[in-house]
Amino acid sequence: MTAKIAINGYGTIGKRVADAVAAQDDMRVAGVAKTKPDFEAKLAIRKGYPLYAPNADVASKFEKAGVKTAGTLEDLAKAADLVVDCTPEESGYKSLYEKAGVKAIWQGGEDHGLTNLSFNAAANYEECLGARFVRVPSCNTTGLIRTLYPLDAHFGVVSVLAVMVRRATDPGDSKKGPINAIEPELEMPSHHGPDVQSVLPKLNIHTIAVKVPTTIMHLHTVIVDLKKAASAEAVLDVWKRVPRVAFVSGGDGVRSTAQIMEMARDLSRNRADLYEIAVWRDGVHVVDGKRLFYFQAVHQESDVVPENVDAIRALMELQKDGRKSMEKTDQSLGIGIVK
Amino acid sequence: MTAKIAINGYGTIGKRVADAVAAQDDMRVAGVAKTKPDFEAKLAIRKGYPLYAPNADVASKFEKAGVKTAGTLEDLAKAADLVVDCTPEESGYKSLYEKAGVKAIWQGGEDHGLTNLSFNAAANYEECLGARFVRVPSCNTTGLIRTLYPLDAHFGVVSVLAVMVRRATDPGDSKKGPINAIEPELEMPSHHGPDVQSVLPKLNIHTIAVKVPTTIMHLHTVIVDLKKAASAEAVLDVWKRVPRVAFVSGGDGVRSTAQIMEMARDLSRNRADLYEIAVWRDGVHVVDGKRLFYFQAVHQESDVVPENVDAIRALMELQKDGRKSMEKTDQSLGIGIVK
Amino acid sequence: MTAKIAINGYGTIGKRVADAVAAQDDMRVAGVAKTKPDFEAKLAIRKGYPLYAPNADVASKFEKAGVKTAGTLEDLAKAADLVVDCTPEESGYKSLYEKAGVKAIWQGGEDHGLTNLSFNAAANYEECLGARFVRVPSCNTTGLIRTLYPLDAHFGVVSVLAVMVRRATDPGDSKKGPINAIEPELEMPSHHGPDVQSVLPKLNIHTIAVKVPTTIMHLHTVIVDLKKAASAEAVLDVWKRVPRVAFVSGGDGVRSTAQIMEMARDLSRNRADLYEIAVWRDGVHVVDGKRLFYFQAVHQESDVVPENVDAIRALMELQKDGRKSMEKTDQSLGIGIVK
Amino acid sequence: MTAKIAINGYGTIGKRVADAVAAQDDMRVAGVAKTKPDFEAKLAIRKGYPLYAPNADVASKFEKAGVKTAGTLEDLAKAADLVVDCTPEESGYKSLYEKAGVKAIWQGGEDHGLTNLSFNAAANYEECLGARFVRVPSCNTTGLIRTLYPLDAHFGVVSVLAVMVRRATDPGDSKKGPINAIEPELEMPSHHGPDVQSVLPKLNIHTIAVKVPTTIMHLHTVIVDLKKAASAEAVLDVWKRVPRVAFVSGGDGVRSTAQIMEMARDLSRNRADLYEIAVWRDGVHVVDGKRLFYFQAVHQESDVVPENVDAIRALMELQKDGRKSMEKTDQSLGIGIVK
Repeated sequence: MTAKIAINGYGTIGKRVADAVAAQDDMRVAGVAKTKPDFEAKLAIRKGYPLYAPNADVASKFEKAGVKTAGTLEDLAKAADLVVDCTPEESGYKSLYEKAGVKAIWQGGEDHGLTNLSFNAAANYEECLGARFVRVPSCNTTGLIRTLYPLDAHFGVVSVLAVMVRRATDPGDSKKGPINAIEPELEMPSHHGPDVQSVLPKLNIHTIAVKVPTTIMHLHTVIVDLKKAASAEAVLDVWKRVPRVAFVSGGDGVRSTAQIMEMARDLSRNRADLYEIAVWRDGVHVVDGKRLFYFQAVHQESDVVPENVDAIRALMELQKDGRKSMEKTDQSLGIGIVK
Repeated sequence: MTAKIAINGYGTIGKRVADAVAAQDDMRVAGVAKTKPDFEAKLAIRKGYPLYAPNADVASKFEKAGVKTAGTLEDLAKAADLVVDCTPEESGYKSLYEKAGVKAIWQGGEDHGLTNLSFNAAANYEECLGARFVRVPSCNTTGLIRTLYPLDAHFGVVSVLAVMVRRATDPGDSKKGPINAIEPELEMPSHHGPDVQSVLPKLNIHTIAVKVPTTIMHLHTVIVDLKKAASAEAVLDVWKRVPRVAFVSGGDGVRSTAQIMEMARDLSRNRADLYEIAVWRDGVHVVDGKRLFYFQAVHQESDVVPENVDAIRALMELQKDGRKSMEKTDQSLGIGIVK
Repeated sequence: MTAKIAINGYGTIGKRVADAVAAQDDMRVAGVAKTKPDFEAKLAIRKGYPLYAPNADVASKFEKAGVKTAGTLEDLAKAADLVVDCTPEESGYKSLYEKAGVKAIWQGGEDHGLTNLSFNAAANYEECLGARFVRVPSCNTTGLIRTLYPLDAHFGVVSVLAVMVRRATDPGDSKKGPINAIEPELEMPSHHGPDVQSVLPKLNIHTIAVKVPTTIMHLHTVIVDLKKAASAEAVLDVWKRVPRVAFVSGGDGVRSTAQIMEMARDLSRNRADLYEIAVWRDGVHVVDGKRLFYFQAVHQESDVVPENVDAIRALMELQKDGRKSMEKTDQSLGIGIVK
Repeated sequence: MTAKIAINGYGTIGKRVADAVAAQDDMRVAGVAKTKPDFEAKLAIRKGYPLYAPNADVASKFEKAGVKTAGTLEDLAKAADLVVDCTPEESGYKSLYEKAGVKAIWQGGEDHGLTNLSFNAAANYEECLGARFVRVPSCNTTGLIRTLYPLDAHFGVVSVLAVMVRRATDPGDSKKGPINAIEPELEMPSHHGPDVQSVLPKLNIHTIAVKVPTTIMHLHTVIVDLKKAASAEAVLDVWKRVPRVAFVSGGDGVRSTAQIMEMARDLSRNRADLYEIAVWRDGVHVVDGKRLFYFQAVHQESDVVPENVDAIRALMELQKDGRKSMEKTDQSLGIGIVK
């Protein structure tokens, strides 16, 4: 059986999930729904994805712009086994999916409460097997879980403090700023800490967020108090065996997020994406045996994409074993930098 | 016969030329030479390109860094039929190539005087057939030639004024600025005008350059006084039939260089490059019948890459017909957006 | 008699006009009206400006925030001789001013049609004497008039082409972008050309605008076809004798707008403003005797401030001679860099 | 007695120290020394500061550029009581000052070891009375001391963790980047922690630095484990009584460093500087009674300026009481925002 997957919302995440689904052999793109007849809509058609409008009104807007649609979101939902919802937060399509009798996956813009089940392939794949609705947490949250979950498993984590220096907007956007300012998130903790706990409920974590004028990656400064003493080497050794965590090195000329994205482009992947969380090998330090410091960079546009593919497999029960799903996904997307 | 191509200099242009050569069936990468054992060197090896050091001193530096080299540049030049020199300007390798009896292509950082022959596939391919040494002009110059040459051929050009708003550095660099300033090039004309004339000696052109804090594309504002009156539609119609000129549209949501590069990423090409010059369809205006205004954006990292492949073919006489070379190159690189 | 001046709108321009009015001896600040009880409102009170709310609703919002207001805009308008309207475009207060029987000055965001009279101190002061309503054109338009008007007077201008590389937002804003893109204004001519003609109706001018990721200044590349031949020295000599045009020089280390604003800060003026248009002395070139090229930088936040002060004097007939008004204004604001 | 103060190095810090010295009644500017005859040199002369060249060679370079010098640095040092050295780090003038028998103050680019005495007006003024040589730590270090010293005095500090999001270069510079990247300082701790200990040797502090594409301020995220439990209000109450710490508020519309610098400009101070450390009132949080979080912004160009003035007074023994010196300095510079 090939699972029929609909993608509702064809922006930064939606178009990547569509391409990633298309790259699997156990699922296919039933169609994508989009609100604007812009260049991205035209490229979707060029790629062979059936294009749907969220409703009849929008469909006529598409028609006027000379862009053909295959029907409305309702039609698409009925024809699909599962919808990956990549619309802006609180778009409110849950009842439509319920009515259509289709499974659904939401992104991190939504609250955990919408599904009461949040997904991370390494942490809780099995828990989500066969579920009706699930949510994949945001890029930052997924990035934190990727490195913290194995640390907790191997050394035990007493507490985590993460200061996240966030890119202000994505590369394809030219409206949002700031151009020349640093903006702290004054509320504390930022929503990311509780969001990590939606997957790792026992983790003691406090997060702080600061927005800066760059488009390409988030940078996390993470401070972890470990239960068991560990060296930097031991920590790196744990991450080395973990999927979707890549190593970079200042010594190799990777001094900033600019060189990480340059490296990603050199890897010739689709859209020059970096699905892995990049950890600076020479930025890992342990003080007094138990206090660990590290820097990691998160490609906000793509790190959740493999998680979405795995979440589809879990919900559709296409694969019972999370590790096997991750391996399949990673191979299809070219993930696996030599560490 | 498969031409053996060496690439000397493996930075922004060199690594792209290497990948483009590797994508052809009438040439292959004999090896690449690089000065630093950084992440780019490691990725070159990963791609299977034999890695050479410019000299024995650098070779030992590579060895210390644990990066294996296949020999020195001299060895590489002897083993190759042609060297594409992508080193920084005035690196001075000409005598080495002469001694090795190898053909060579330089990039736009060098003066026209180094070769007395500058290349553009559409404009003077045949003139360069079998030449020993040739130079491919810079990204900006190539961009201007791409749209001006067909205009001159169809309508006649009285004079050109181009104001080039230049990106300050490439995306992979994190050292250069400015962060928050606009910097005019006070000398006039900027070097680009005379550089266009190295290929189109009769074109009356004046260029002005201004540097701005962005990394992703140059934007040209071009004002052309035509000999024959023409409408905007007639001008677009000429460009429509010309290779390596793509159309974008503000009406499709492509308002800035950000959306052009986003579109390039969506095309799933290597490194998300855009080899074409992008012209805004709804930014072409004709005033009083003969004064043409247009905006074009130039992807500084990649627009010269197909020209280098064609230049190899011309020098090696792998193909006598320039149009056929261009077609072959374009097909191999995925060039050819629906206009 | 000291003219009582109200300022409606206390943002970038409004607060500067208030301070400039306060620095004159023939007018005083009757009050300022503002819509938000933010830090700028608190600083207005600290400066001793009576603070008004646009209406009773907003007044109660101020009260809740603990910021005292002296009344509503209507009260202020009645108590004043003239209102300088610095509200966002199309705020629609004209009928309120008419009802209050008060004179008014608008800024460049409004259309010329609102007043049918646009003001520039050097160009048409006398024409505006005693007028009821007038409009001061925008920063870019004022900048163009400052250098073009004397050129036309001395050499005659056949035609002007100006390519304006515009800052995307002001330094105090952190919401707007782009962060990393160049955005051309696809419609042509940009509104600036016709706007210059609102003051200089016979000037043949075409303007083109491009937006870039900087906050500090606009940069104009201006190309002028002169009637009479002139040397660069002769052109500089004309501007030397003109008020509100300053010279900078790449040779002195002023390579970009960053150094111009640094120089402005070093001049110890209020808010580090630069009321003058800065022309690069070594960026002025004449080709073939009659085609003039020059670069000028415009401090978008402040260049219209002295024009507003002069416009007040013209409307209130505090001074019949425009040159004398300009001298008085310039002295009070510290204008007059050694050229 | 009016102390004769020389300033060696007339860049970002030097020119501000000169103006601040000129604003005092117990000291005066004996002269400033500068290496380049650029616009800043010309403005120094305009301000009436005698201009010196570091040596005879540079003096002749100035002469050629038409900029008059009053002699060499040696002459200046002999004529002065004290030199404030604002040259780039490791410029190596110590022996010249020793030979000239003059006192000297260095900036934070130098190591503590150069003087074995580092200065902060609030923390150790009295310790530095009459000293020959002293060093004022850098902007970031001074910023941390300003808020941490009073916290330690009132509540006791167990440990401090500061993540500093640093501006990449100053506003007047247009060469340095990055334009679009985040760059972590991989070595740990960053030099700032030990630097704070040069003044507060017993403070347990770890610092982490990340560089971002902005020019206007550093932003510190500070996490402090207190000995005695305290509320956010109690902490704010301590800082309220401390000089050179200002409060800003997101609720007042100060969301980012852009609005802080806008506020600074609205205060009409020299160069629109903000000598105070700005703490977000609504960004102060206490968790579990003893863990304090706060954000502070540092105007890197000016926060050390008042410290330099006080250091002069301490070394010259113009005032024995540090608090009185601070008051005098602050009044002369307009410091003292209503909190």
